[in-house]
Amino acid sequence: MYDLIIIGGGPGGLTAGIYAQRAMLKTLLVEKLALGGQIAVSDVIENYPGFPSISGPGLMEKFEEHAKGTGLEVKYAEVESVTTDGDEKVLSTSEGELRAKAVIVSTGAKPSRINVPGELELTGKGVSYCATCDAPFYRGQEVVLIGGGDTAVKEAVYLSKIASKVTLIHRRDALRAEKILQEKALNTENIEILWSHVLKEITGDKLVTGVVIEDLKAGAEKEIATEGVFIFVGTNPSAISIDVEKDKSGFIIANQNMETSVKGIYAIGDARNTPLKQVATAVGDGAIAAFKAEEYISE
Amino acid sequence: MYDLIIIGGGPGGLTAGIYAQRAMLKTLLVEKLALGGQIAVSDVIENYPGFPSISGPGLMEKFEEHAKGTGLEVKYAEVESVTTDGDEKVLSTSEGELRAKAVIVSTGAKPSRINVPGELELTGKGVSYCATCDAPFYRGQEVVLIGGGDTAVKEAVYLSKIASKVTLIHRRDALRAEKILQEKALNTENIEILWSHVLKEITGDKLVTGVVIEDLKAGAEKEIATEGVFIFVGTNPSAISIDVEKDKSGFIIANQNMETSVKGIYAIGDARNTPLKQVATAVGDGAIAAFKAEEYISE
Repeated sequence: MYDLIIIGGGPGGLTAGIYAQRAMLKTLLVEKLALGGQIAVSDVIENYPGFPSISGPGLMEKFEEHAKGTGLEVKYAEVESVTTDGDEKVLSTSEGELRAKAVIVSTGAKPSRINVPGELELTGKGVSYCATCDAPFYRGQEVVLIGGGDTAVKEAVYLSKIASKVTLIHRRDALRAEKILQEKALNTENIEILWSHVLKEITGDKLVTGVVIEDLKAGAEKEIATEGVFIFVGTNPSAISIDVEKDKSGFIIANQNMETSVKGIYAIGDARNTPLKQVATAVGDGAIAAFKAEEYISE
Repeated sequence: MYDLIIIGGGPGGLTAGIYAQRAMLKTLLVEKLALGGQIAVSDVIENYPGFPSISGPGLMEKFEEHAKGTGLEVKYAEVESVTTDGDEKVLSTSEGELRAKAVIVSTGAKPSRINVPGELELTGKGVSYCATCDAPFYRGQEVVLIGGGDTAVKEAVYLSKIASKVTLIHRRDALRAEKILQEKALNTENIEILWSHVLKEITGDKLVTGVVIEDLKAGAEKEIATEGVFIFVGTNPSAISIDVEKDKSGFIIANQNMETSVKGIYAIGDARNTPLKQVATAVGDGAIAAFKAEEYISE
């Protein structure tokens, strides 16, 4: 049996692994696919302090090397569920059952995709799901944004301060965002809203060069030239069956100690109700969760 | 007037600066002495993800370079107080008055020193105030620990799993720590408690080689050879006059959004009631505070 099992090998999970190994906990990190998480598909990251500019895969290689240097054991398996058996946590995985005294859930989240041609291929190459991450790459440029909910409109306002113009593409003829956000967007000069339009395609070879949109009322298509397409149509936590309290979007509720509603189960990074999804914040969460797990286990 | 003033240029403050600059806020970072904060006096840091092993000053140079690369303005001045004037925050400093729409307090904390010969000179060279930071450097070695409160005893138990032996030096003949922690320490085989002893001196030239302690009852001094001395006799937040809610030790109370009891004033890192004082956690706090300050300012 392990002291601690960490589910998910993104920045938060790897940080928890580093801290747990340093605290001499018998630790296993279980990863479904490849270490690094979402950031590993990012072309460039410029806001993880200490690295002014580095590729996502490059940064995650450094994290992996750091974690493995502490002797962290990594197992590749898909975790289906986490249950409790007395004080023990039981993980049902594609490679059989695993048991630990404590579990850290760092399974991340995935932005919803629109699933149009070019979207997947150009992610990290002009297609972005995070304004905080990528807005500065488009300083003074014209960008396109898809969505109409709270996050989309908030990010449009944010982007309008950095980009020279934001074209907001929305499938309906009214925004779903809360009133105060709507007014802000409507009153911002360099935000143009194209109502009743949908995204049909993102064009570009190695980098985004434009979008093809359809006017639903006129039934006509047109192309807009842009190097940056921001998509905000929702975010989903990764699916794993675990009986802890979640918010209405399915993110695990954790307090400042990363403790969930079940003792000995912690949630970090994008998998929890975090105020900000960033490498910098996942790293902080991971350190705290490992520290608190060590305290819990030693009790 | 600035959008945002960040008080303190440690890892948390510099991170907030990077995020604020990227969000195009008109930002000023005010630092009293030198950028880098406490970590800049650390010999080696091995738990900031991405850097398996780097000197404290080396890491902080990278943070500084990163922050300055974003164009962050830095002013060297001592902040005496922060007050509010309507929606504006007013900073009284050694270099005059400064005003901003929002303020992030990242003034850090300082461990209490015992003030014995060798302590200051050998800090970071065998004298440590943080087990999570430095315990792994003493794997399988014998260390000395000073203190008798909750933190001291908790850290003694933590260290006992990594070091081969922990000698706990306590000035009284009973621990002040809570009962359950006491029992844990008393029942740990490789923790030896020297009651009614005080630290007189830490010896060593470039690195710690031992401690001189005095038996208060017998009045006799003796030396213990060790390369690691952990001191836990309290931690104090840096003094700055600011009217926000604090905990009983004087740390600013902030929620998960780093918001204090006053709108537009945020507190991060060691200056707040954080569950863990680390570069990794300060960085997470800094990113969140800048993000939330941007939202607040744009409202």
